[in-house]
Parts: sequence; structure tokens; C-alpha cells
Amino acid sequence: MAYFNIGKIQYEGPQSKNPLSFKYYNPDEVVMGKTMKDQLRFAMSYWHTLTYMGTDPFGGTTMSRDWDQTDDPMKKAKERVHAAFEFMEKMQIPFFCFHDQDIAPRGKTLEETNKRLDEIVAVIKEEMARTGIKCLWGTTNAFGDDKFVHGAGTSCNATVFAYTAAQIKKAMEITKELGGVNYVFWGGREGYETLLNTDTGLELDNLARLLQMAVDYAKEIGFTGQFLIEPKPKEPTKHQYDFDTATVLAFLRKYNLQDYFKMNIEANHATLAQHTFQHELNMSRINNVLGSVDANTGDPMLGWDTDQFPTNVYDTTLAMYEILLAGGFTKGGLNFDSKVRRASFQDDDLFYAYIAGMDAFAKGLKVAAKLLEDGVLENFKAERYASYKEGIGKDIVEGKVGFKELEAYALKNGTTPNKSGRQEMLESILNQYILETK
Amino acid sequence: MAYFNIGKIQYEGPQSKNPLSFKYYNPDEVVMGKTMKDQLRFAMSYWHTLTYMGTDPFGGTTMSRDWDQTDDPMKKAKERVHAAFEFMEKMQIPFFCFHDQDIAPRGKTLEETNKRLDEIVAVIKEEMARTGIKCLWGTTNAFGDDKFVHGAGTSCNATVFAYTAAQIKKAMEITKELGGVNYVFWGGREGYETLLNTDTGLELDNLARLLQMAVDYAKEIGFTGQFLIEPKPKEPTKHQYDFDTATVLAFLRKYNLQDYFKMNIEANHATLAQHTFQHELNMSRINNVLGSVDANTGDPMLGWDTDQFPTNVYDTTLAMYEILLAGGFTKGGLNFDSKVRRASFQDDDLFYAYIAGMDAFAKGLKVAAKLLEDGVLENFKAERYASYKEGIGKDIVEGKVGFKELEAYALKNGTTPNKSGRQEMLESILNQYILETK
Amino acid sequence: MAYFNIGKIQYEGPQSKNPLSFKYYNPDEVVMGKTMKDQLRFAMSYWHTLTYMGTDPFGGTTMSRDWDQTDDPMKKAKERVHAAFEFMEKMQIPFFCFHDQDIAPRGKTLEETNKRLDEIVAVIKEEMARTGIKCLWGTTNAFGDDKFVHGAGTSCNATVFAYTAAQIKKAMEITKELGGVNYVFWGGREGYETLLNTDTGLELDNLARLLQMAVDYAKEIGFTGQFLIEPKPKEPTKHQYDFDTATVLAFLRKYNLQDYFKMNIEANHATLAQHTFQHELNMSRINNVLGSVDANTGDPMLGWDTDQFPTNVYDTTLAMYEILLAGGFTKGGLNFDSKVRRASFQDDDLFYAYIAGMDAFAKGLKVAAKLLEDGVLENFKAERYASYKEGIGKDIVEGKVGFKELEAYALKNGTTPNKSGRQEMLESILNQYILETK
Amino acid sequence: MAYFNIGKIQYEGPQSKNPLSFKYYNPDEVVMGKTMKDQLRFAMSYWHTLTYMGTDPFGGTTMSRDWDQTDDPMKKAKERVHAAFEFMEKMQIPFFCFHDQDIAPRGKTLEETNKRLDEIVAVIKEEMARTGIKCLWGTTNAFGDDKFVHGAGTSCNATVFAYTAAQIKKAMEITKELGGVNYVFWGGREGYETLLNTDTGLELDNLARLLQMAVDYAKEIGFTGQFLIEPKPKEPTKHQYDFDTATVLAFLRKYNLQDYFKMNIEANHATLAQHTFQHELNMSRINNVLGSVDANTGDPMLGWDTDQFPTNVYDTTLAMYEILLAGGFTKGGLNFDSKVRRASFQDDDLFYAYIAGMDAFAKGLKVAAKLLEDGVLENFKAERYASYKEGIGKDIVEGKVGFKELEAYALKNGTTPNKSGRQEMLESILNQYILETK
Ligand SMILES: [Co+2]
Ligand SMILES: [Co+2]
Ligand SMILES: [Co+2]
Ligand SMILES: [Co+2]
Ligand SMILES: [Co+2]
Ligand SMILES: [Co+2]
Ligand SMILES: [Co+2]
Ligand SMILES: [Co+2]
Repeated sequence: MAYFNIGKIQYEGPQSKNPLSFKYYNPDEVVMGKTMKDQLRFAMSYWHTLTYMGTDPFGGTTMSRDWDQTDDPMKKAKERVHAAFEFMEKMQIPFFCFHDQDIAPRGKTLEETNKRLDEIVAVIKEEMARTGIKCLWGTTNAFGDDKFVHGAGTSCNATVFAYTAAQIKKAMEITKELGGVNYVFWGGREGYETLLNTDTGLELDNLARLLQMAVDYAKEIGFTGQFLIEPKPKEPTKHQYDFDTATVLAFLRKYNLQDYFKMNIEANHATLAQHTFQHELNMSRINNVLGSVDANTGDPMLGWDTDQFPTNVYDTTLAMYEILLAGGFTKGGLNFDSKVRRASFQDDDLFYAYIAGMDAFAKGLKVAAKLLEDGVLENFKAERYASYKEGIGKDIVEGKVGFKELEAYALKNGTTPNKSGRQEMLESILNQYILETK
Repeated sequence: MAYFNIGKIQYEGPQSKNPLSFKYYNPDEVVMGKTMKDQLRFAMSYWHTLTYMGTDPFGGTTMSRDWDQTDDPMKKAKERVHAAFEFMEKMQIPFFCFHDQDIAPRGKTLEETNKRLDEIVAVIKEEMARTGIKCLWGTTNAFGDDKFVHGAGTSCNATVFAYTAAQIKKAMEITKELGGVNYVFWGGREGYETLLNTDTGLELDNLARLLQMAVDYAKEIGFTGQFLIEPKPKEPTKHQYDFDTATVLAFLRKYNLQDYFKMNIEANHATLAQHTFQHELNMSRINNVLGSVDANTGDPMLGWDTDQFPTNVYDTTLAMYEILLAGGFTKGGLNFDSKVRRASFQDDDLFYAYIAGMDAFAKGLKVAAKLLEDGVLENFKAERYASYKEGIGKDIVEGKVGFKELEAYALKNGTTPNKSGRQEMLESILNQYILETK
Repeated sequence: MAYFNIGKIQYEGPQSKNPLSFKYYNPDEVVMGKTMKDQLRFAMSYWHTLTYMGTDPFGGTTMSRDWDQTDDPMKKAKERVHAAFEFMEKMQIPFFCFHDQDIAPRGKTLEETNKRLDEIVAVIKEEMARTGIKCLWGTTNAFGDDKFVHGAGTSCNATVFAYTAAQIKKAMEITKELGGVNYVFWGGREGYETLLNTDTGLELDNLARLLQMAVDYAKEIGFTGQFLIEPKPKEPTKHQYDFDTATVLAFLRKYNLQDYFKMNIEANHATLAQHTFQHELNMSRINNVLGSVDANTGDPMLGWDTDQFPTNVYDTTLAMYEILLAGGFTKGGLNFDSKVRRASFQDDDLFYAYIAGMDAFAKGLKVAAKLLEDGVLENFKAERYASYKEGIGKDIVEGKVGFKELEAYALKNGTTPNKSGRQEMLESILNQYILETK
Repeated sequence: MAYFNIGKIQYEGPQSKNPLSFKYYNPDEVVMGKTMKDQLRFAMSYWHTLTYMGTDPFGGTTMSRDWDQTDDPMKKAKERVHAAFEFMEKMQIPFFCFHDQDIAPRGKTLEETNKRLDEIVAVIKEEMARTGIKCLWGTTNAFGDDKFVHGAGTSCNATVFAYTAAQIKKAMEITKELGGVNYVFWGGREGYETLLNTDTGLELDNLARLLQMAVDYAKEIGFTGQFLIEPKPKEPTKHQYDFDTATVLAFLRKYNLQDYFKMNIEANHATLAQHTFQHELNMSRINNVLGSVDANTGDPMLGWDTDQFPTNVYDTTLAMYEILLAGGFTKGGLNFDSKVRRASFQDDDLFYAYIAGMDAFAKGLKVAAKLLEDGVLENFKAERYASYKEGIGKDIVEGKVGFKELEAYALKNGTTPNKSGRQEMLESILNQYILETK
């Protein structure tokens, strides 16, 4: 009872003309001491893959899936589970990520909703056992339903805050049940539409209260997955509180939550904040909060979250470069929070799209590894900052000097000549590595 | 020996047809318990007013000033002092702000530079004594000279770091000498051009070291002015480390510097970061770091720092609203970090431009005060968030409940209906206040 | 059987504290020789007012309307007609605009769809007769249905082109039937997602063919309404062919269609193209193609079409200034292609929102008229360009000189000094007019 | 008397580790029937290469060139000529582009300016004869000098219009003298700062008059070079009249100038207009106005014209794809209107930067040629639009049907099912071609 009329996607190498094969993703190939599979830790996003039907703000569905041909919502939910695992097996994807609402439809009451979740979780566990596929992370959808119109943890309505807490509690429990190694907070409507009606101070205090409760409850039930916050600057609200990595860090440090949360960096959210994907990964890395990655891409000419499949090898190379510099993934992975274009409405487009994304990251991994192994950029940087390894630079770094000593130094010595930053040369070398790394 | 062929600008009221008069800025009029003069604390920016000559990336100077008609750089610097104070007197501006480089030209050596600064500082002090005009803040220009090509406190060249420290030391000393009540850090080139050659971790650690040295030195010399950081996201570098308020707060909290620094919010820097001016003021307010304001505006359709004079009364109203909510200025003020357009190259354009900006903020102050006095927005907000004043909302705020209690509550009670956010109604009321406040 | 529990909105003047009254829109007040009602020619947009339920890409409906409480689609369509006219009567709105799909739901076949349209058109005609409310324009929705996934007139599928033509034919017929004085073309999906699969040359040729057919058919049936094209640069497609006024003009002139089409300028589409609303109106005006206006606003910090109600009086003043300079509306009007915010989900928010927009444009009309009557800007411009009224300037304008004569002139005379553009002074005067015009 | 301590740059192939070699640009290698040299027609931009000294809006020069070590402006101008030709020879660049002001400094009078131009032109001609290097295009700088503060051909000052005409006349003459095969119009300040003081109608009429005079004068003197207009949307003015290709086409068609002008497409100007580089080339191609290219790149996260050297192989591939589809360059070429980064201030950075750009375009050429030779995209498109080759589609294209026939068709036949646009599959194939083309 297959939903997809396509077989397992195999690695056939860069010369293959078969569009239904991997050209670069060779799961068992070892790169920097680990298999590609273990370095990349690819995950399927349940929502974009199983439930996205091609709608956009100006049009309805364009997709019709075999697994949706029933009117019974719970039957549909179960069919989706089977389709999901068939797809992951065929795509050789070892992980999945989900919102509670993706896997089971809301019931009329919270009680019914939770019961439905339990029923589907059981089906998923069977499929996990059958296939060996694992849960990378779970989360709750506290943004789609109309009760969240003014936010969830930052709602002006305290009963909505309570409901949100209840949803997170359940979502954390089922994530634990499914062995999820992370739990993600994306504040879908945690933001504001206009400051004319918003008490940002109270809303942010409340958000901190909610996260503290999550920390406490995780301890209580022994959930040891990593908590992740996924920054996004805008959309759906005019201003989302978790604007970018730096904003989230300011928040966590204010409320003394910094030990419990890392980042889930999404490429398209980075660019909506006018940062490069690499920038956000870099900022997370140097603050030791690089947790996991939502691997997609935006269109730099468009101002909304297009969530396209990532195919730009510059982006994947520089992303993997930061990830490898950070020591590689531990609990995190590359979750394709990516959706096929509205016009790519056929079932096989899901395969083409995942192949495109997985190949792009596999290639990026190999190029990044080669750059690191050859020390191209790291040696350049080491030399560039060498003045902090000795003399006055060393004194600065070691805290041995203050303004008076530095003024005395400057009065006596002036400055040594600067050297070129060599941006163009480095960009040219990067090209050579991308094009020539085998 | 006047430089300007224009007399003192007087308040003539909103019906005046005299373009060289104030229509709304009435210095001694009392608004919310203080005179306009004391509420607004206007400051002249030395650089844009005295030294900007109309250049842009595609063209040379368009302005020729009477005070610049000498080739002797120190004579020119002194003439500029006299022109500056004549202008401020005529404009009724009670404060000025300056970079070291604005008031005295760099010498061949640091020693000579510092000597020049002392010479001009003496002239400025005379003028201050004569006029009663005060220094709002000083700063150093550690971005224009080619030694800062890779940054100042974040330079890869340790001797440039040392030089920067020496410059800040001197600038802080002369700010103290001039009675400046704030000292500003704008990291002109503290950022990166490309991550291919940049060690962001070291650079940010170094920036923290520099600020810590400033804190220490201020204590040592008894400088009690408020330290301010001025966020800006981009330009001149591709990425500036002090991107926005949140980013600066994350940085300060990481390095335990949060007790020593507040924000100097510039309107145009806010918008370059894709925030409204009001947003940045709001974020500073709720974090108790609203220090001072660089009052200008950008063009929302343009991607660079246009530093235009602020004339939009919506912007000035909403800015003053946040400032009043924060309790009004203590040490800070409204510094016109604004320059006349390249095509506004005549001397009298300086008057027209400052009148435009001062009137716009005076009007904004009055409207904001009326909104507050009538409680229009604050009462709406109080009612909107009333659910946190009792019952489950109060329990949440007081930390009396966790996930389990909230789940029990939600299972039992569900949620109460939401109410409209009334954005359009509030925008309509805002219009009425702007148009009808006398 | 009223749908709205609110009475007729009346003009109460700027001091009224009644939120359900007009402060500035006084329909019968004469401004520049015409009543406000005739100058502004307000129209209700059927879609955003009657059928928008608060959805966005991240969430479902938030609104529930009394007129939608039936499952019978045709009954619902009829109730909507009655609600629409009740709303327009109560709001004193003299016109409406519609897509075919707004007024009647698609049937299973084109035949059924058309029959449904006829049935609803009859109901609308009754209501028009009863109320005196008129049709400003009609259009077809050739973007929402999945058949238009690759475009309508620019679809790669010729049968979709044919279907589009059939839809436009019918929409034009019912617009004629309803006495609509314009017919609008908004190319919802006339654009591309990626150039990798797109033959832009053929698609644009086909779009021209479609418009030529529309011109021919209008002649055939004697439809004398003005054809309007509504530019939009992006969204839903990555690139929409009708990017902005200039782009549409280039297209029309290429295919010799320029005599048959004017522009329907939407404020938010202008800003998405990185133009001001005023710019697009100005470009239309100087090319004699300013037809009608979709009156809304975007958020300059957001990259998608927010379609907010217009409340910024700078925008409405400068828009009305261009419209008055163009001689005022003839067939066109101000259509509120504006939707209440998702969080403004109560029925009365529709009233607050329309009041906000109508008052903002009423005020803008009065300020613009006063600026024109006083000749403030026009006199300034006349003097600024006076050099083209005599001497060498006159020769240039009259085509009497070429490069050789002008070189001779320049060699002999050089250039006369420029004068300041006075931007800040003019902005200050504009403020005074906005704040002081009664 | 070499200015550069570097030898001739040679092709060493993709495995070379020599940063001062070409990895992909092999001038004599034949691609699609022509040598790379003839396909790419690389040109050096005189301004960015010889006269850019590293300044930006926040800082002074960072570069010091051997050819600038004299205070005599005409001696310096001559040294620059020799440096320019030495550089082009060493870089194997066959063309150069220039503004009049790049090659000779303005004199006190127009007469002196023209005399200086003649003097330097003579030196350039010697170097051209010696080296065989040719002139791709010339232009005038009518934006930098303060007389152009309000524009040149669109100045409000008629004497400035006259001066502009005189400058263009001379620039056209020396371009002819140097055998330039194109002449470029970039309207540096042809735009507006604020509509409050601007008569856009007169300004655009005047611009058309100026271009008509240029057309007439070219005929008169027998200058047969191609006239090119270079669109740019913003910067230095708030709005530049030549916003993008479509805007220029609308203008040309309005004034009946369309037969005399083609486009000089600059990559960074395209992106500032929120178009991709490929889009602007495509629009020029399908309108038969693709003349020449300013090969650079912007930073999609930055809002000003960064004019970076182009190194992104996606961009160069898709650009060359459009150029090859257009039949390749005839008179045009790839002019590096690109400047080294401010921090790349050493002389050898010029070499690294040009190598980076030339290699990126050489690779792009090869990939584009392979894509065309294999018919990958063109065959996909042919099949995608096949419905216009027969039946109702053919009738549409041939103008045999109108609305009535198409309605009859649609009523009878409905629509045939659409097929996926296959965006992700095509992006994946593009990756394979970029990475695997040898
Ligand atoms: Co995500
Ligand atoms: Co996203
Ligand atoms: Co500032
Ligand atoms: Co600024
Ligand atoms: Co519209
Ligand atoms: Co819109
Ligand atoms: Co260019
Ligand atoms: Co450029």
C-alpha cells in the first residue's frame, strides 16, 4: 500500500543523469571522521511535506495527495503517518520533526486533542520501530488557531497563556515519548502588530515565565532533550520578539534562562532579519548556542518566508563550515523546513526537492571539510590576528593593560601598517574549492 | 563678526508665515510639568552642521561656508567654534554633541592631535561660558582614518586597538572637561566585511575589553557622565556588531557590562535595522536603557543612512510618547544627527532644517503629552491586559502556577473569548490627537 | 434584518469623541468646487470587506460574520449582497468594486459559474436601485483557482488562456450590466517563479493578445468603461509582469495598446516596488494614465502586501495633491482595497477601519486643496524652473538648439549659480498645512 | 617603469594553487564557436581601477598608488594612462571603458577641460596602438561636480542643461576618436530628491530632448557606436529616472527614441531595483535591447551600490545564459564596473579581484554553453509551452480567435490538467552543470 510510485533513492554519483538519484549525498561516505549520514543528520519536516497543499495568500490548494483521500480526520492522520515513513525510507532520511497539529487534528476540547495525539503517537512509534527512523524534535503549534490571534505565551488573554502552557506540556510529553532529542520553541505569534495597543514589557516577562515553566517541567519529567528557540524577525506578526540570535540571547540572559536554550537557526529567517544564514550560525557558534538548523532558503528579492528548498552550494558550504567549526551536530540536525513550490504540485516533486536539498548540503559538507582540512581560511585568520598573540596585543587579551598603558604605547609607537583583508582573493579560492572538491 | 546673516529664531506660533520662525517650539511653554526646553533638550551635532559640505559617494562638495575660508586648519577649527555657537544661540539650542575630529583636525602624531584638541577645547569653553550652552555628549571618531580600515576596538591589528583606547581616553577627558553629561560609543567600523577573514569571537571579546577599560578609566578620573552605545546595523561595514538595541543588550549582558551602558537610539539606524524608531525606543525603555536620542529620519525606500532632518509628526509623537513613558530625559536629549540635503546647500538651509526638526518634535511632545494626560492608549492597554490582574493571570504573573496547574485549568475552563486589538480605531484616534491637539 | 448592530455613520466634526462618527469626512462639504463625496468617490472593496475572514499564511480564520451562517453557498452569496449594501449605506460609501468570485462562488462548470453570477447580479441590481450605490469597477479572479497555478493570460497551458478569456468576457459583461464605469486587470499570477522554466517573451506576447481581445470585445458590446491595469511588482509570484506604472507603460506602448488602458494605482503595490504612493500617482499623472486608486497602505518595514487601511495623513495629502493636479477623478475613485487586521476581527472593526480611511483621505483632500489654492508648491516650482521660460532654456524646450549651439553657449557663458532645493523648508511648510488647515 | 610588481597573469587551470593565475579564463579556448576572449569581451573600468582610493561615506582614502605620487594633475593623469595599460596588458583585458573625468581632470573652464581631454586622449591612443587594447565605451561624468547638484539633463537650471550637452558632445567626440564602439548614458543625478519641488514632466521631456540631440549629433559626425542607457533605480538621488530596463523602455517608446538606444545592464543596479541580474538581462533580450553589461555584484543584504567584483558562479552562469541566448555580444562586452573593497587596499588586490571576476565569468560561460548545447532548459521550455504550437493555442498565437471563440472553447472543453513547473528539479540540474562542467 505505497503512496509513492517511486523506489528508494540511491546514490549514483555526480555523472548520473537520473533525476531520481543522489549525485552527492552518499550516506555512508566518511567526511571528517563521520559518515555523511551522521554529519548531516537530515530530517523531514512533517508539516511542509505531509500537510502543505500549495495554498498561498492569493490562491487555494494545487496539490492532491493520495494519503488525503478520506474525510475522516483521524484516518487521514494515520495515512499521513504511513506516507511520511514511506517517504523517509525511500529518501533515506533518518529523522523527522513535527508540530502536534501536524500529526493529529485538534479535537473539540483539549482533552480530545490530547487523546488524538496519543492515538497517532502510537502509530508513529510503530513506524519508528519498523524503520529505525528517529525523532529530531517536536514542538507545538500555538499560532494557527484563532485563540492565538494575540499571541500564545504573549497573549493579552491570560487564559490563552494557560492553554499554551497546556499545549507545550503535552507536546513535550509526546516528544519525550517519541524519543525526540530536542524540543523547539518557535513563537509563531509571539510579537506585536502595533505598539499602540501592546505592553511589550509584560508580554516579554510572560514569555520568560512560560519558558521557565518549561524548564521546570522538563526536569520534573526527566525530559533531557535540548530546548531550542527558533528566531524569526517578522511574519506573521509585524514584529516577532525572537527577531534573531542576538535578540534571543539578550532575552535569555535577562531572565537567566541562558543555560537551558540553544538556537534552531532557519536560513530564511536569518535572511528576513537582513543577516546571512552564515552570520546567524556564526553568532550561535561563538555563543555556544548552535543547536540545530532549519535548512531552507529564502529569495533575497522577496520579503516573506518562502521556505524554499536549499540548493545554493555557497550557502550550504558556508553553513556546513560553521557547523563543522562548532564541532558538528550533537543533538541537532538539518531539518528541511522547506516546501515545494506551489507550482511543483506533483508527488514526485517532493522527491526532486529533497534530492536537491540533500545533494546541496552533501556537496557543501565536502567543500567545507576540505577547506578546513587544508586550513585555507583558518590559517589566513590565524595570521591576520597574530598581533594578539604577543606584545601589546597579548597584554590586551590577557587584561594586563588599561587606557593609560595603551595611550603610552600609542604615543610612543603609533600603529603598525595594516594589511589587506584579501576579500576578493578569498572569494576566488572559495570558488575553486566549490568547483574542484571531489 | 557674524557668520550667519539671520537673526535669532523666535516662536511666532502656528499661523506665522515667516519661514524663519518657530511655529510649535515655544521654549518656555510648560508641557507635563517641564518647559519644552527641558523636556526636549535639543542638541546640535557638530559634524553635520559645521563640517558637512554636501559630498556623497557620487559627488563632491556643494557647500561653501564662511567659516571655512582659510587654509590654516587650526584657524578654521576656531572659526567653526564661533560659527557653531552663533548658530546655537540664534536657534535657541541648549546643547551640542561632538566627535574629537569634528572640533580639531588630526595632527601628524597622537601627541599633536591631543594638543590641538586642548587648544580648541579652551575656545569652546569660552563660548560655553559666554552663552550658557552645554555639552550633551562627546565621542571619538575611530572610523574615518585609514588606520581603522579593519575596525578600531575590533581591528585585527592590536596596535590599532591600542590607538583606539588612547583616542577614547582623550575624548573622555575632554568631554569631562567640557562638562559633557554623556559619552557615546558608536562603533563606526566595529563590524565585518566578510566572514571569510573574520574571527568574530575574538573581535567581540576585544570590544568588551575596550569597554571595560573605559568603565575603569571613567571611575579612575571621576567621569560621571552616562556611557551610551549607539546601535547601527550596517554601513559602513556590511555587518556592524551593534546591530540594534537587543544585540547590544545581549553583548553587554554576556560581558557583564550591563550596569554601565545605556542606548543612544538613532531613528535612521532603527529603520536600517528594519525596526521603527518607536520600537527601538520601546525596547530601550522596557530594559531601562533609554539614554539619549539621535533625532533624524531615514527614507524607508532607501537602504543607506540618509540622516535627514526629522519632520514626520507621527514619528516625533510616537518617539516622545516612549520618552515620556520612560519618565522623560534625565541626562539625555534630542541630538539632531541630521544633515541638510546635498541640494540644500545654502547657509539658511541650516536654519530651515533645524526649525523643521525642532517644530516637529515640539508638536510631537505636545501630542504625546495629551495622549498620556487623557490616558487614551494606556487605559486601553490596562483593560486589554486586565486578565493578568486577577485569577489565573495573577497566578501566572506571581509565579504560583506551572504547567500542571495550567493544564488543569485549560482542561477545565478552555479559553475566554478574545477581544479585537482595535488597531484601526487607535490609529484613527492618533490622527485626531495629532491634528487637534493645540 | 440588519447584519450590523450600528447606525448610520454621521459627520460630527474634529472634536467629536464618538469613535463611530466621521471627524473629517463631511460628504456635502465643497472642496475645490466639488463636494467631498464627488471628489473622493469612495468605494468599498467587496472581497476584503465581505469575504476576508482573518486568515494569513500561518493561521486560520478569526472572523465569523452573521452573513456567513449558512452552508448553502448561493444563499450565503445573497446574504453577503445584503450585508454589503447595508454596510455601504451606513458608511455613506457611494461605490463598490468586485471580482466575479467575490459575489458568486465558482460552479462545477463554467456554465454553472456564469449562471450563478447572473443570479447574484440580479440581486445586486436590486440593491443598487434601492440605495443609489453604484459600481466603480469589476474584475475577474483569475489567480485563486488551481488552474491558474502557472498564470492565466500568461499560462504555459493554452486551455487556461482560453478559460481566462472566457472569464474576462463574462466579468466584463456583468460589469457592464451593473453600470461599472471601469474594468480592472490585476494580473494576479501573471509573472514567473523562476526563469529556469519560463519563456517570458511568449508569455508577454500572449498577455498583449489577451488585452487586445478585451479591447475588441468591449467595442463589440459597447462597453465604454475605462480599462485599468493595476501594477504590482511581486506576490504571489516572484516577479509580476505589471511591476509598476513604468513597466506597464513600456508594455502597452510596445504592443500599441496605450490608448485603451489607464492605471489603477494601489498604494501598497507602489511601496512593494520601492516607490512612494505619490511617485506612482505622479508617474501616472504625467503620462495621462491616472485612472483610479486602490487606497490602502503597506508597512514600510514589511515585505508583503499588508493592504492596511490608509491612515497616514502625509500619504493621503500627497496622494490627493497628485489627483487634484491631474484634474480630479473622472471615472475613477478611491477604492479601499484594504482589510482589517487579523486581530480586528469584530464586525464593528469594519466601521472603525473605514472611518479611519475615509477621514484620513478627507483630511488629505482639504490639505491638498489648500496647498493648491495657496500655490505654495506650484509657485515654488514655477520659479525653480523659470530658466526654461526664456533665453537658452526656452530655446532648448522649443527644440531650436542642438549640441553645437549649446556647446557654444556653455563655452561662452558657463553656468549660472544653482539655488537651494529647499527640501527641509518645504517639508516644514507641509507640516504646517497638515496641522493648521481647517 | 612598471607600476605593478607583478607579471602577466596566465591561465594555469583549475588545479593551480597560484593565486596570481587564471583557473578558468583561458582566452583562446573556444566555447560555442568563439574564443573565450571574443565571447566575454572583458573591459577594465577606468574609474574604479585607476582612481578609486578606498573612500566611503564614513572614511577617507585607504589606498596609495604609485601612479598618483605627483601633485601635477596632468602628469598624474598621464601616469594613470600608463598604469592602466600596463594593468590591462598584464591582466589580458582587451577593452577599457571611461568617463571623461576619469582620464583628465576638469579645468577651470570648459575650454581648458576639453583641451586637457585632447592631451590625454593622444596619450591613450599611443598606448592603444602599442598594445592593441581597444575602447569598449566612453561616457561623461555629469553628476560629480556641484553644478549638477539638481541633475544634468534634468536640472532645473537651463544653463546646466546646456553645459551637459557640451560635455556629452565632447565625450562623444573623444569616444569616436578612440574608436569606442558604444557610448553610455548613465544619468548619475537624473532623478529627484523630493516631489515637493520637482516638475517630473518637464524634467523627463528635457531628458528626451537631450537624447534626441545626441542622436542627431552622432549622425552629423558619423559616430556609429551604439548608444546605451544604464538603468539604476536609486543612489545618489532618491529616485533615478532610469529605474530599470522596463522604465527606460517606457521612456524611449514615449519619445520615439527606441531605435537608437540599447541597455547597459549593471548587475548591482538590477538588484537595487529588486530584480535579479538575470531578470534585467532577460527583459533586455526579449526586447532586443541587450547592449552591454557592467559586470559586478551587490550584496543582497545591503541597500547601496557596493559594486563588488562578481564571483558568484550562479550569477555568472545565468547571465552568460541570457547573453548567449541573445546571440552573444556584438558591440557590447563585460565591463568590470567593480571596485576592490576598501580593505583590499594593496595594489595586488586589483589583480586578485580581476582574476576572481574573470574566472567567475569564464566558468559561467562554459556552464551556460553546456546547458545550451545539451538543450536542458530550452527543451524543457519547448515542451512546457507546446500547447501554443497546435489547436486552440496556435489559434491564439496567430490571432484567429477572440473572446467569443475562446468562451465557446472553454464552455465545451474546460481546461487540460497543468503539469508541475519542476523548479526544484531544474535547480538541482543547474547545480550539477555548475559543478560538473569541465
Ligand atoms: Co523553521
Ligand atoms: Co520559515
Ligand atoms: Co547617530
Ligand atoms: Co545615521
Ligand atoms: Co488592489
Ligand atoms: Co495589495
Ligand atoms: Co555601471
Ligand atoms: Co553600480
